[in-house]
Amino acid sequence: MSRFFTNRLSNLIPYVPGEQPQDKKYIKLNTNESPFPPSEEVKKAVAEESDKLQLYSDPECVELRAQMAKNYGLGADSIGMVNGSDEILNFAFMAFADERSPLAFPDITYGFYPVFAELNHIPYSEIPLKSDFSICADDYIGINRTIVIANPNAPTGKYLPLSEIEKILASNPQNIVIIDEAYIDFGGESAVKLLPKYKNLLVTGTFSKSRSLAGARLGFGFADPEVIKDINTIRYSTNPYNVNRLTSRAGIAALENDGYYKDKCKEIAENRDWTVKEIQKLGFTVVPSLANFILAKSDSIGGEKLYLTLKEKGVLIRHFDKERIRDYNRITIGTKEQMKILIEKIKEITEEI
Amino acid sequence: MSRFFTNRLSNLIPYVPGEQPQDKKYIKLNTNESPFPPSEEVKKAVAEESDKLQLYSDPECVELRAQMAKNYGLGADSIGMVNGSDEILNFAFMAFADERSPLAFPDITYGFYPVFAELNHIPYSEIPLKSDFSICADDYIGINRTIVIANPNAPTGKYLPLSEIEKILASNPQNIVIIDEAYIDFGGESAVKLLPKYKNLLVTGTFSKSRSLAGARLGFGFADPEVIKDINTIRYSTNPYNVNRLTSRAGIAALENDGYYKDKCKEIAENRDWTVKEIQKLGFTVVPSLANFILAKSDSIGGEKLYLTLKEKGVLIRHFDKERIRDYNRITIGTKEQMKILIEKIKEITEEI
Repeated sequence: MSRFFTNRLSNLIPYVPGEQPQDKKYIKLNTNESPFPPSEEVKKAVAEESDKLQLYSDPECVELRAQMAKNYGLGADSIGMVNGSDEILNFAFMAFADERSPLAFPDITYGFYPVFAELNHIPYSEIPLKSDFSICADDYIGINRTIVIANPNAPTGKYLPLSEIEKILASNPQNIVIIDEAYIDFGGESAVKLLPKYKNLLVTGTFSKSRSLAGARLGFGFADPEVIKDINTIRYSTNPYNVNRLTSRAGIAALENDGYYKDKCKEIAENRDWTVKEIQKLGFTVVPSLANFILAKSDSIGGEKLYLTLKEKGVLIRHFDKERIRDYNRITIGTKEQMKILIEKIKEITEEI
Repeated sequence: MSRFFTNRLSNLIPYVPGEQPQDKKYIKLNTNESPFPPSEEVKKAVAEESDKLQLYSDPECVELRAQMAKNYGLGADSIGMVNGSDEILNFAFMAFADERSPLAFPDITYGFYPVFAELNHIPYSEIPLKSDFSICADDYIGINRTIVIANPNAPTGKYLPLSEIEKILASNPQNIVIIDEAYIDFGGESAVKLLPKYKNLLVTGTFSKSRSLAGARLGFGFADPEVIKDINTIRYSTNPYNVNRLTSRAGIAALENDGYYKDKCKEIAENRDWTVKEIQKLGFTVVPSLANFILAKSDSIGGEKLYLTLKEKGVLIRHFDKERIRDYNRITIGTKEQMKILIEKIKEITEEI
């Protein structure tokens, strides 16, 4: 820290993204990316748009929001677009959480939530997951806090049924409830259908996972138009052109090619189910997942040890050095071929013990 | 504002970007974009990279910073990359300004500075420009504030010599001095050369103007490595993947094609000098500019009236409804053909009066 750094943020501990090692080629199952490239139409759209890069992007994202509205069956004024869904989470924390409406989220969840809270000086409480890593909706009933729930949750992959989410929404009418649906397209049902009923609902999502655009940075939020307006107040006070021309165009093309991505999501879900069966045969406990990853622990080798040994063997998974999940690893679901290699390598490792 | 919006930010007035009207084709001289498209190599680089969009971008921007280091003759650890230079200004305000080191900037300058200050609850003072719209360095000597100076300033276009900036840096050793060089490539000399001498200097820049990449969103900062680390603390606490794959690749290609862009900047500077001469013949007062725009007022027609009449005639310039500059308009310098049409249209308007 330089001597100029503000005391205000002296306790801030930044988020640590999953490693992107450059030393050799890995089978990369550590950052929940899609193993499939974007559709050909996306690539074509990007190439065409590069001709106009000297001009600013449309800060209102009119075309992109119109296409989103079509795909999701919503009004364009219920949609906000951002540079990756992390950005809308940060904007929403800034807009809706404070001392009067402090944050609440599970103790085991996306690691960026406490960072955004610290950054914005918002008090927060972490509500423990049940022993099976499920979220207990009763813990959130009428707590009068700004609530953030990743559904499916990360890094557990566990899905909370909409009926449970609805209880939380109905019992906290004075507070925004954020449902972070980064992983919804791999088997869960979106809370979008609850929007007409709950003015306090903000659903966030991303093109990074199910639409193969992690490298383009495109996220979004769905909410009551008044709530979207508030988010835009923050957006226009930080970075009105946050969504660039190329990303915007890639997003529109991806939305038009919905079928391609739905097929790929189905394939990933099938690979997930196959991987779960195979890894269970090797003595692993797996948290039931509706995401494009699984959280799993071996009965014979520690979480960190497995992560390091697999890395040596050229397969990258993610280990979180955090209480309650230290024995586990989060494994992104890739292609069938990648998952076969993973299972083989784990077999080798567990047989060597 | 929804009933959920925090009281903390109830006074926040967002930045208003220049209009991007969709009703008809304008000669667009209102948002300081380059009239020239990016180089062919940039377009090729973008098209190639679109194949890997399913993978996250490198949060450390290793390749991009290496190329920046080469072009600017700096160490890679003195360089920070962001999603447009607005972002690094916001990050720097968050990192270095607070009650103990409040902000100071000119009364007439980039309109985003007070917005970032409000957003981050940082006290600020606006220091009046002299009557000729120049910055008086003496007003900033030893004021013990976090100082932000756009050089050339916007929307005036006026350049402050490095010798004056050095006085400000030397007399405020406990505070960060930000020199916002969005428009430096059109004739000014960069403060980069002062970096080895002043640990409190942060120079910010953008690919939006001189490198024809407004639509790609790429900004940067140069400073002592410790200061860059602090900015990264904020970056990793908001949006570590802020620079996407396509933009990063476009940036590298643009840096490699430095000659193309230098030629275009020279052409714009020549068009600026031609425009100044022609518009002065029509009775305009022009603030001396080293930017890719000029601030000018007519002796026969009001600022807003001229803006509106030109808009009707298909030429878009920017009017700021702000004291001291209400009689003026900011006119972006485009191609020679565009500037000829501007001059013709102004002639028509002033002859009609």
